[in-house]
Amino acid sequence: MKPTPQWVKDLKPSAPQGTELIKAERDSSKLSVDKLSKFLFTKEVLDRQATILKILEAEKVFDKSRNYFDGRQDRFVTALARAKRLRQLQVKHNWTQDEFYCASDLISEPGPYGLHATMYLTTLRGQGTPEQHKLFLEPAENYEAIGCYAQTELGHGSNVRGLETTATWNPEDKTFTLHSPHLTASKWWIGSLGRTANHAVIMAQLIIAGKPYGPHPFVCNIRDMKTHEPLEGIHVGDIGPKFGYNTMDNGFLLLNQVKIPHVNMLAKYSRVDPETNKYVKPSSPSLIYGTLTWVRSTIVLDSGKVLARGVTIATRYASVRRQFQDRDAPSGTSGENQVLNYSMVQYRLLPLLAATFALHFTGKAMMSLYQENQKRMASATTDTTRGVGPEELQAGSDLIADLHATSCGLKALGSTIAGEGLEVCRRACGGHGYSSFGGIGAWYADYLPTMTWEGDNYMLTQQVARYLLKSARAVLKGNAPTNDTTKIFSTFLQKQDMGCAHDVLGSDSDLVAAFAWRTSYLTFEALKHRDLEKNSWNSLLVDFWRLSTAHSQYLVVKNFYDVLHSESLQYELDPATIDVLHKLFRLYALDTLEKEASEFYSSAAVTVRQIQLARTKSVMKLLEEIRPHALRLVDSWNFPDWQLDSSLGRKDGKVYEDLFYRASELNPLNGLTIDPYPNNDTLVTRDETAQFKAKL
Amino acid sequence: MKPTPQWVKDLKPSAPQGTELIKAERDSSKLSVDKLSKFLFTKEVLDRQATILKILEAEKVFDKSRNYFDGRQDRFVTALARAKRLRQLQVKHNWTQDEFYCASDLISEPGPYGLHATMYLTTLRGQGTPEQHKLFLEPAENYEAIGCYAQTELGHGSNVRGLETTATWNPEDKTFTLHSPHLTASKWWIGSLGRTANHAVIMAQLIIAGKPYGPHPFVCNIRDMKTHEPLEGIHVGDIGPKFGYNTMDNGFLLLNQVKIPHVNMLAKYSRVDPETNKYVKPSSPSLIYGTLTWVRSTIVLDSGKVLARGVTIATRYASVRRQFQDRDAPSGTSGENQVLNYSMVQYRLLPLLAATFALHFTGKAMMSLYQENQKRMASATTDTTRGVGPEELQAGSDLIADLHATSCGLKALGSTIAGEGLEVCRRACGGHGYSSFGGIGAWYADYLPTMTWEGDNYMLTQQVARYLLKSARAVLKGNAPTNDTTKIFSTFLQKQDMGCAHDVLGSDSDLVAAFAWRTSYLTFEALKHRDLEKNSWNSLLVDFWRLSTAHSQYLVVKNFYDVLHSESLQYELDPATIDVLHKLFRLYALDTLEKEASEFYSSAAVTVRQIQLARTKSVMKLLEEIRPHALRLVDSWNFPDWQLDSSLGRKDGKVYEDLFYRASELNPLNGLTIDPYPNNDTLVTRDETAQFKAKL
Repeated sequence: MKPTPQWVKDLKPSAPQGTELIKAERDSSKLSVDKLSKFLFTKEVLDRQATILKILEAEKVFDKSRNYFDGRQDRFVTALARAKRLRQLQVKHNWTQDEFYCASDLISEPGPYGLHATMYLTTLRGQGTPEQHKLFLEPAENYEAIGCYAQTELGHGSNVRGLETTATWNPEDKTFTLHSPHLTASKWWIGSLGRTANHAVIMAQLIIAGKPYGPHPFVCNIRDMKTHEPLEGIHVGDIGPKFGYNTMDNGFLLLNQVKIPHVNMLAKYSRVDPETNKYVKPSSPSLIYGTLTWVRSTIVLDSGKVLARGVTIATRYASVRRQFQDRDAPSGTSGENQVLNYSMVQYRLLPLLAATFALHFTGKAMMSLYQENQKRMASATTDTTRGVGPEELQAGSDLIADLHATSCGLKALGSTIAGEGLEVCRRACGGHGYSSFGGIGAWYADYLPTMTWEGDNYMLTQQVARYLLKSARAVLKGNAPTNDTTKIFSTFLQKQDMGCAHDVLGSDSDLVAAFAWRTSYLTFEALKHRDLEKNSWNSLLVDFWRLSTAHSQYLVVKNFYDVLHSESLQYELDPATIDVLHKLFRLYALDTLEKEASEFYSSAAVTVRQIQLARTKSVMKLLEEIRPHALRLVDSWNFPDWQLDSSLGRKDGKVYEDLFYRASELNPLNGLTIDPYPNNDTLVTRDETAQFKAKL
Repeated sequence: MKPTPQWVKDLKPSAPQGTELIKAERDSSKLSVDKLSKFLFTKEVLDRQATILKILEAEKVFDKSRNYFDGRQDRFVTALARAKRLRQLQVKHNWTQDEFYCASDLISEPGPYGLHATMYLTTLRGQGTPEQHKLFLEPAENYEAIGCYAQTELGHGSNVRGLETTATWNPEDKTFTLHSPHLTASKWWIGSLGRTANHAVIMAQLIIAGKPYGPHPFVCNIRDMKTHEPLEGIHVGDIGPKFGYNTMDNGFLLLNQVKIPHVNMLAKYSRVDPETNKYVKPSSPSLIYGTLTWVRSTIVLDSGKVLARGVTIATRYASVRRQFQDRDAPSGTSGENQVLNYSMVQYRLLPLLAATFALHFTGKAMMSLYQENQKRMASATTDTTRGVGPEELQAGSDLIADLHATSCGLKALGSTIAGEGLEVCRRACGGHGYSSFGGIGAWYADYLPTMTWEGDNYMLTQQVARYLLKSARAVLKGNAPTNDTTKIFSTFLQKQDMGCAHDVLGSDSDLVAAFAWRTSYLTFEALKHRDLEKNSWNSLLVDFWRLSTAHSQYLVVKNFYDVLHSESLQYELDPATIDVLHKLFRLYALDTLEKEASEFYSSAAVTVRQIQLARTKSVMKLLEEIRPHALRLVDSWNFPDWQLDSSLGRKDGKVYEDLFYRASELNPLNGLTIDPYPNNDTLVTRDETAQFKAKL
């Protein structure tokens, strides 16, 4: 392989340089990036990230330069090496859970211990008895047993009740027999199961004396603890390559009459009494409910940051990239126009930039609501001496129902905005967005399953609709609990006969109220279709999906509004930054209003004229006003270059140098010399790929 | 490696079997798949495909079972082997261009000769002189020279005028010097350049005596014809991995003062006179224009079929997949509901099914318009004895302008619908849609660049708007040529002051007219903003994009309408099939109308009540009516299983068997046994991947 010639090494991008352009762009705004970062994350979190980043950067195994080149097998083995090292570092530095998550976030790739560290441990903790903690949780926490959570089956995704795997109680020897009666019963998609785990929590239909009791969790050892070979009666493996997430070994598992002891059924909530051979019912199913709510809330909180990666990359590249002269530029003007100057680019990117903040604030609000409720529940259930009255329990359960519905709707909306938004960002990078070095594609592909797992985004909307219909019925009957949802419904019912007049362009609170009005309108329309016109549930699924989306959009707009009116804001941010945040709020709300215009028309929440003006005047003006701050706003998300691993999203603007370096110096394919003639069957005449791989 | 145990081999999916479900689904409609296939493609094309499929299936090199498992390097080398064999077969069977394309379509992967077989040969043919044909085209047609088309640069995509590569005329020795003055001048994204081509047509700024004459095409030998090593002054290689398209070696190219003879500038249209050292201008630039129009028309034509692959896979899987009981099912009913029965699934898939037909018919209409015009142009320019008058030339040039704008708008709309639609189909497959074996992901990823190349889909909309504004000005001035666009504008102007009353639910022609009205309304609105209010071009880009989309949607609706009213229809199809096609037309039009409702509101093209009814009544009803025919409608697209390579899209419904087989028997990752404990640094304890790969 010839070395790169000197004349190539001497070449620079044509002027102006990316470094100059991005500096000028940064200088065009006075917004305080530091203050905004602290407001978003707190100083503690920022400091933590800086400390951990240094530790990771120093470790060769976390070097990312191979990531875009390696095939699946190499990527998986590297991910395993990283997962091991990460665990070692966790022990060495005595990392908290938050520090561990921070490290994972910086590494930004799913790893083979992923489901062990989350779902396996969480399930054992939450659903095991003290005896089971000793037996299963302790070795798992020490990584002496590696586990996964096996629920989904080849033929059964969302519908847990449809699971086919059985766990049959054997009274004679006090054991359960786990069994897969059909091919479709094979566990499927189970993270960490394919090659890594030697244990699994298996969700199986409990059967006692021929009678089914629904799905329950069972711990099962599946691979030999020494040889790592599958145990007798177990057929297990990786399910194959996927659109993304290929560093994870999602697996399948078939069981052929596998016996496990009585203690392997996780028994905190329900169990089989080994003496009477009777089923003992769960005492408090609502706490299990809570875990799913927590998982969904995390997805909402993450969605802002997930999207912010794409927006950061696209905004930085749009500050460096120039294309065409401005058509209205005076003749004689030379030089091409910065892509970020194009209103079409602003129209695609800046509402997404606004969405990153909107989702982040919403996620934070959800999380505190969840934590507050957990505290209340814990004290209500543990503090039995206090004598909790039925009203208090009812209020708690109302709040859980509200939280559950809210988390479903926001999970669906947030992950959809983030997932689809990333693709918009990728495309906004033009041709180079398609290069792996752009850094958005792989991130997007890895994120996509979030739209399906923890409740498919379309399926979830039914839960939201069900809750809203129930609340609406209660409001009509006059026996509704007092919460925000029932409040907006009551307001709507009061004003329904005289209509409304929301000045969405002149008043922020009216803007929020217009979203509330639309939710209420759609709820009572759906209620009419279901309760009066007796339409089938199935025929209303599209209405329910729209309703859930509308309600969740309302919640996002409202949460953003609340942050702007919170007391802490004035102390933490200067007026100029607050002003930009306020513009982002208005952009998010008005852009959403305009994109969903037909529902605002038909619910008469806003006048036709104001909806038209929302885009042609307000949104376009906001784009112009926010544009000078766009780069600093994405900077405030505080992604290190090491994390983004993107030529286009480099903080220093050296886009072209980096793209070229990776292609010319690192790309192993350039080590292959081929015979190009079709009549010669020889394909590769020289293979020097090893020399490239050695550099990686 | 242990063999798969017998108890696993004995397992079947739980009842009912996919084979039974898909058969029942097929039996539920009487639609004639054969007749509809013939109507879409002609019998000749279907027979051709059957013949060629047999030839390809018999060749081991085209076997697809490795595709989803191989990393980039293996995939590229395999693609090269396939490209060679394909060329050998082309010669052996004396395939026409159509037959060759049919074979490529069945293989369905970009290959290393891709740009040689298309752009390199086309450019030489179209822009070379007879002398150049002898010198460059003949060896290229015999694959003795392998070429590519090098236009785009690292710093310059859409804007051809901004290209930096220079070709400087040297009067002293009658040569050109090709040179890359900066890093950003590096040719980039050039298909077949990375590892394969030994020649390139290089677009470079022609410079004579220090004066630039704009970009022109130059043929340049870049690699040694024997050793395939880059020649002196050439730095060339592959640009690295991409989101898709990884079987193609998109390349980069830097030139350091490379001298080429005078004859290497393609000189059919413009040239440098070697005697006078003067530039000779192109005689007819509009013919060059024509090639781009043709390329875009092909993209429109393909977009229907591209999308149909995803719709076929998703519809077949939704016929086999079952999930949840129907909520309104009488208690005691057992069994889960077929996913295709859910109205939310129908709402996502069936409008896309309608779009496949709409786009196919539109593409066919575009192609015949293009061919008709080519004939006219050819006779007008060659038949000089006939004495073509200025009116005739003007009419021809008007038609070219119309064709150009139409092809821009429809390319943008068609490829956006197809690309985004494929992702909708992938997600409609739920979790398994994320598996590579689903077959949509890779196809989608390979298709995505179509939205960027041959004119970025957002950029192109400016060309459409420019044309529509120009036509509107001409109509206002009374000097417009007579064509469909000016006709709908005139109608709009006549009725503008009394409004309109389009009965979109009651009359098909009114439905088409409503789309025409909306286009016209948006055109005259944009014209007002630009010409009267003197808004900047940049500030109107979002309006232009909407206008172009509206106009292109109108064209698609109109073309579908025209097919339904064509004379041939009655002869080729039975009334029941025509009825279903008619429903698909209405579904496409009404679903589009409803999704773009706010523009139909604000242009007052339709009453508010009818827009509301469009979804809640008409669209939902059409979904129900089309649903029983969905499977047969996708069958009529006639994709062989071999082409789709999808577990989910199998014609026989054996979804689960196929997913399981590929994962358990073929997936090489299952040959790796690992050490799962973080304190052991050992990663792989046994590597039996070779045994899996041997099966592939």
